[in-house]
Amino acid sequence: MDADVLKTLGDTLEARRDAEPQSSYVASLFHKGQDAILKKVIEEAGEVLMAAKDGDKLPLVREVADLWFHSMVLLAYNGLRAEDVLAELKRREGTSGIDEKNARPKG
Amino acid sequence: MDADVLKTLGDTLEARRDAEPQSSYVASLFHKGQDAILKKVIEEAGEVLMAAKDGDKLPLVREVADLWFHSMVLLAYNGLRAEDVLAELKRREGTSGIDEKNARPKG
Amino acid sequence: MDADVLKTLGDTLEARRDAEPQSSYVASLFHKGQDAILKKVIEEAGEVLMAAKDGDKLPLVREVADLWFHSMVLLAYNGLRAEDVLAELKRREGTSGIDEKNARPKG
Amino acid sequence: MDADVLKTLGDTLEARRDAEPQSSYVASLFHKGQDAILKKVIEEAGEVLMAAKDGDKLPLVREVADLWFHSMVLLAYNGLRAEDVLAELKRREGTSGIDEKNARPKG
Repeated sequence: MDADVLKTLGDTLEARRDAEPQSSYVASLFHKGQDAILKKVIEEAGEVLMAAKDGDKLPLVREVADLWFHSMVLLAYNGLRAEDVLAELKRREGTSGIDEKNARPKG
Repeated sequence: MDADVLKTLGDTLEARRDAEPQSSYVASLFHKGQDAILKKVIEEAGEVLMAAKDGDKLPLVREVADLWFHSMVLLAYNGLRAEDVLAELKRREGTSGIDEKNARPKG
Repeated sequence: MDADVLKTLGDTLEARRDAEPQSSYVASLFHKGQDAILKKVIEEAGEVLMAAKDGDKLPLVREVADLWFHSMVLLAYNGLRAEDVLAELKRREGTSGIDEKNARPKG
Repeated sequence: MDADVLKTLGDTLEARRDAEPQSSYVASLFHKGQDAILKKVIEEAGEVLMAAKDGDKLPLVREVADLWFHSMVLLAYNGLRAEDVLAELKRREGTSGIDEKNARPKG
């Protein structure tokens, strides 16, 4: 798996955080602010639902990619990266080995 | 970045797809079917919104991890993997170099 | 309470269902099809979340109005009306008197 | 249309706002706080999407009823009522007559 794509994408997103709004889609999204990014996150989650109900695999992959992409824009907006998310997923795997979900701190 | 966590997690999810429902959280989710998984996806997207609005970084990382985790359960349910999503993200990066979103086929 | 607004609005929506796409926002939404309407429903639900987290009452009322409005577009698209939803809410009230949610048939 | 159901339901919700958490589903939801209510709102919006994609009318009516119901719990939590939402919908109808959506103040 070429997971370096997440690192490269994170670098790209960071570079666009302070770019001119009209220079790219991502730069314009950063400029509009967090609510605009959150709107995209929830919209893409909705599109994942619709693609899954439609039952075609390729559109589902594309919508999940859109969802992860906009999650990463949100992370970058908050000074975070996919690496933080992967570390959290790894931490759960390490502590549980049986049920990642239960390893999540509640509250 | 230790991105192998996505591969390991994908393997774990696949192994649980045919396990007894009561053996783990994921196995029970697979057993309930796709609508139950989709419910979790949209619920976790909502929690990402709330965490972002609350403005604390650690909960945001945890909620994005929950969202990606349940996206991967959905992928596994459909015989897909995180690798497919990463390949799609890489494809967009390759074709564009400027704006990943615009590289997405519309339809 | 002037709840006739829901009836009037339902009539208006029905009248626009077969209108030219460019004649109004609603007509264009009907023309784009159900997925476009569903995208608006989930997007407005997300905006309700954000408005609630922001803690200001007027924007919250507006976002809930947007959510109900687009729910009614969805109902109209499916040949249904707000009256059907109100009848369902009334049915739950009637059967329960204690807990409307529990009166909902599961399935 | 017996739209008084919204008024009756609003009265019921208000009465439960200060009730013991274990006395009813709604009382427990109020007790858990706004985030728990918002989680239900987004979850029900997701179920509206799934019901619409499934294409059966009765489940769709039920899910929209669930969505409106939990919107009203959210309104009650914030000292608001369905009447406020209906007034907003009426205001848009009044000012526009053509396109309710465009009548919404932006920003």
